[in-house]
Amino acid sequence: MGKNRLEAFSDGVMAIIITIMVLEMKVPTGTDLAALKPILPIFLSYLLSYVYIGIYWNNHHHMLHTVRQVTGTILWANLHLLFWLSLFPFVTGWVGHNHLEPAPMALYGVVLLLAALAYFQLQRAIIRSQGADSLLAKAVGRDIKGKISPILYASAVPLAYLSPWCSAGLYIVVALMWLIPDRRIERALMTGEHV
Amino acid sequence: MGKNRLEAFSDGVMAIIITIMVLEMKVPTGTDLAALKPILPIFLSYLLSYVYIGIYWNNHHHMLHTVRQVTGTILWANLHLLFWLSLFPFVTGWVGHNHLEPAPMALYGVVLLLAALAYFQLQRAIIRSQGADSLLAKAVGRDIKGKISPILYASAVPLAYLSPWCSAGLYIVVALMWLIPDRRIERALMTGEHV
Amino acid sequence: MGKNRLEAFSDGVMAIIITIMVLEMKVPTGTDLAALKPILPIFLSYLLSYVYIGIYWNNHHHMLHTVRQVTGTILWANLHLLFWLSLFPFVTGWVGHNHLEPAPMALYGVVLLLAALAYFQLQRAIIRSQGADSLLAKAVGRDIKGKISPILYASAVPLAYLSPWCSAGLYIVVALMWLIPDRRIERALMTGEHV
Amino acid sequence: MGKNRLEAFSDGVMAIIITIMVLEMKVPTGTDLAALKPILPIFLSYLLSYVYIGIYWNNHHHMLHTVRQVTGTILWANLHLLFWLSLFPFVTGWVGHNHLEPAPMALYGVVLLLAALAYFQLQRAIIRSQGADSLLAKAVGRDIKGKISPILYASAVPLAYLSPWCSAGLYIVVALMWLIPDRRIERALMTGEHV
Repeated sequence: MGKNRLEAFSDGVMAIIITIMVLEMKVPTGTDLAALKPILPIFLSYLLSYVYIGIYWNNHHHMLHTVRQVTGTILWANLHLLFWLSLFPFVTGWVGHNHLEPAPMALYGVVLLLAALAYFQLQRAIIRSQGADSLLAKAVGRDIKGKISPILYASAVPLAYLSPWCSAGLYIVVALMWLIPDRRIERALMTGEHV
Repeated sequence: MGKNRLEAFSDGVMAIIITIMVLEMKVPTGTDLAALKPILPIFLSYLLSYVYIGIYWNNHHHMLHTVRQVTGTILWANLHLLFWLSLFPFVTGWVGHNHLEPAPMALYGVVLLLAALAYFQLQRAIIRSQGADSLLAKAVGRDIKGKISPILYASAVPLAYLSPWCSAGLYIVVALMWLIPDRRIERALMTGEHV
Repeated sequence: MGKNRLEAFSDGVMAIIITIMVLEMKVPTGTDLAALKPILPIFLSYLLSYVYIGIYWNNHHHMLHTVRQVTGTILWANLHLLFWLSLFPFVTGWVGHNHLEPAPMALYGVVLLLAALAYFQLQRAIIRSQGADSLLAKAVGRDIKGKISPILYASAVPLAYLSPWCSAGLYIVVALMWLIPDRRIERALMTGEHV
Repeated sequence: MGKNRLEAFSDGVMAIIITIMVLEMKVPTGTDLAALKPILPIFLSYLLSYVYIGIYWNNHHHMLHTVRQVTGTILWANLHLLFWLSLFPFVTGWVGHNHLEPAPMALYGVVLLLAALAYFQLQRAIIRSQGADSLLAKAVGRDIKGKISPILYASAVPLAYLSPWCSAGLYIVVALMWLIPDRRIERALMTGEHV
């Protein structure tokens, strides 16, 4: 009930976040390839954020698959997640316009951390509305990836002041860890009852 | 008949309004945390407007749930509501770029007021097309929240010239009042017939 | 077959066109109401274009209602229409930033004219794919409004060089003429077979 | 399973890409027709990219029609395609702001090439998930257009340094070649089993 619309709205917001991030790559004034050089860090930060939004869309897609009834709590937990995702263009732009400076790199981690916690809350809200023996609860299981990620983001924030490179490395590692879509849910959907 | 498309279009507009408001938070030129300080009021005004758009989306979602047939009047009442919502990025930007100045604060209230009246008209149009004993009519009941909000917005407009702080406070109070989704409709849907 | 997706894509493009037009209303630097004065013509041109996009969305909505099968010709006729609609933000901005100058006013009419012709072609493509005794063919009938509009737009283009005010007046008259959604189709849907 | 959402997200991203490209056409400061002259190359590059996005949307639409089950591989192959498409506004802006300079023209070809390869991979991923005797496999057949296009794009990249005009000509030729939607799939859908 109303699930389609929750998905459509979330898809809309995530699709716009992705395309708005591209706007940070301003058209260069020069006409040779050298003019692209200052855009390279912006391109790389866009690429990383694109992958993160892709991961969120992907896992969101799998998670909502298991939802039968949308409650008010789920609606607001979802809006909470989208709020932090909507800050991606801002932090991506700040990281991209500066060469691995501590403050932008730390803020990027803060937004990643708050988005991850919001995702966790949304997952909890869905499981709570379905009961502890629900499909999602079984699929998520102990949720090791979901618990390690916030810890790594939280470590990357102070680390940015020691070595921005290490923070950037951590963000890339977590992204690679999640690039594999949530096969746990996919598997549970296959073996378990059809939703 | 056609309801899905009305929802999809409204979702699209609201999703874009939210993400376009973020564009007011320009990437700062500085690279330390102090560079974020001038962005803080823009962030706070974005947060408030995000919550308002979230509330509208939420209640819109619940209200359209009860619609069976979309008439021309409902289509235009909906477009009328979306028009005032589309001005949110402009007034949010004006409020955010100034520290609690009277005129931006008053204009913010004017747009909130006109959006609230448009929502009220849309609600009326839906009830009229369904009959006075419809599900939505019962669910809305005396609609106390819906009647208090415009009064509070209308009070906040002149008040902005006395104390912008008080206006800002009123806007936050109304937002908190609405943060609870329209449980009246949710309850009526549960107990009443399935739509 | 595929009709939902055609609608969803068109809704997306029209929703974004509407919200992107708002971006022309730049946040003023002043903090009093006088700072809004230069924005007033931009607001008025936005309002007119918003009504036009609303009319197109509304009629598009009614027209696609009668489509059973989407052909390649319909897909491209639809993309052709969306192309001219996508130029609305540009011409709206040019009209809004200038006080009734001939050239922007004339170009506004050119884009309105080309969008109207593209809409006409889309209508033809749908009727052709359905047969001359189709629901849409009956509903459209002699299509007086659809034939008068392009003539009025075409007259407004040269007229802009004599009197931009008259062109603006013509654009407003045509918008008012169309504000009433295509009740012909609505009526035919009611009395005719259910689509 | 989940196919609707994949389509909705892709539609959203492509709809936004199209409308964001228009933003490169900045409102001119002059008020006569001569003020439009510097915008003409931007308009033409927008037109070409609009046609390309239209072609991608059209073929994507036909291709996904044959998909029954969305796998993780298909999801990511689709996100990979959307990534290269999301760079269209940037390269279109660079081409449009310069009069047929080699580097922008070459980069345009690089993005077209990478998008074409991503489309090819997505097609492969769908066929692999369906089996070699699937509807799409039969419909695509030897896929001559799909194999010629990347070769032409790859030729246009170095050619841009000899003659940007020739590269531009090649991009237009390939667009015209694809303007005809993938009738192979349409035909197979008609004669073959209903999907």
